[in-house]
Amino acid sequence: MPVIQVDGPQISVDKKRELARRLTEVAAEVYEMGKEHIIVLIRENPPENVAVGGELIVDRRKGTSTK
Amino acid sequence: MPVIQVDGPQISVDKKRELARRLTEVAAEVYEMGKEHIIVLIRENPPENVAVGGELIVDRRKGTSTK
Amino acid sequence: MPVIQVDGPQISVDKKRELARRLTEVAAEVYEMGKEHIIVLIRENPPENVAVGGELIVDRRKGTSTK
Amino acid sequence: MPVIQVDGPQISVDKKRELARRLTEVAAEVYEMGKEHIIVLIRENPPENVAVGGELIVDRRKGTSTK
Amino acid sequence: MPVIQVDGPQISVDKKRELARRLTEVAAEVYEMGKEHIIVLIRENPPENVAVGGELIVDRRKGTSTK
Amino acid sequence: MPVIQVDGPQISVDKKRELARRLTEVAAEVYEMGKEHIIVLIRENPPENVAVGGELIVDRRKGTSTK
Repeated sequence: MPVIQVDGPQISVDKKRELARRLTEVAAEVYEMGKEHIIVLIRENPPENVAVGGELIVDRRKGTSTK
Repeated sequence: MPVIQVDGPQISVDKKRELARRLTEVAAEVYEMGKEHIIVLIRENPPENVAVGGELIVDRRKGTSTK
Repeated sequence: MPVIQVDGPQISVDKKRELARRLTEVAAEVYEMGKEHIIVLIRENPPENVAVGGELIVDRRKGTSTK
Repeated sequence: MPVIQVDGPQISVDKKRELARRLTEVAAEVYEMGKEHIIVLIRENPPENVAVGGELIVDRRKGTSTK
Repeated sequence: MPVIQVDGPQISVDKKRELARRLTEVAAEVYEMGKEHIIVLIRENPPENVAVGGELIVDRRKGTSTK
Repeated sequence: MPVIQVDGPQISVDKKRELARRLTEVAAEVYEMGKEHIIVLIRENPPENVAVGGELIVDRRKGTSTK
């Protein structure tokens, strides 16, 4: 029943496979539940849709920032 | 004011129309509010972005799993 | 695997039971999946934590608003 | 550490830049934290994935609704 | 229709009022929509339920961390 | 920048500490980022607010279910 939602950048299917498997193992151990009860939702966010400190990731990478 | 977020697989517009209409009817009745106050957000998740039991849906379908 | 997150006001356990049962029935039919794959998370939000039109629900009720 | 998730329609990168910058400024002031601690996630939802009052936005615009 | 979900620490009702009002103003301007279409959900997270860098906020404050 | 939201049952602070630390380690490795960029939000849901298969967890435990 635990649901793990992960918002991160775009990644390969192999990375998703590893992420889901390992997050599920951790949650199953900590919650002391069978793995079959754990759901993982991976959300891929383009760098223009995420900001840290008020600045879009896409701008940070470009060095558009003056900071 | 109630907000219903649904994470599921990709579906047709007709399915979305039915899903939104019926979820809203249920919420309006249970919360005893007018339907105009209910918002539904449908999120479509590709099968490589969702895992159950630590295994991506895309792998389950392929029978990649050894279980 | 579909996950339905509902943000609404505080409700009784009987209301939660009805909400979860009926939302699940709708989702199971539209997604053409067994009900056992559907998860519902009900979040109860106090009226001071939700705003519509920039005004907290708790203020709307009190008529604190000058509008 | 505050995380602001915004679900809205599709917008230009310039609009995203402005949205992220200004939401972050507000949150930093109200929470009395440095801006570098604020994360903004912008989610763009196609009009067929959002409903108000049980009706998809895409249908409202088309005037498909009989209401 | 835009929905803004804010996860932050516990704050006073006055702070919530200001946060909701100002976030709504920004969203209404950027999305070019009337304020009445904007919903804000404020979630208050106790410091033991949030982690940055793998460390709970409650531990950071206490200096429990050995780093 | 990755944000991990975990919805599960109520757990002790020690469990939260372990959950946050280990989920962060996994995400940092898979995303190839420093741990300081990873945020974890743990949400604790009472068993009357979560349903699987249309049935509240609180009812499943009680054996209220007739299934």
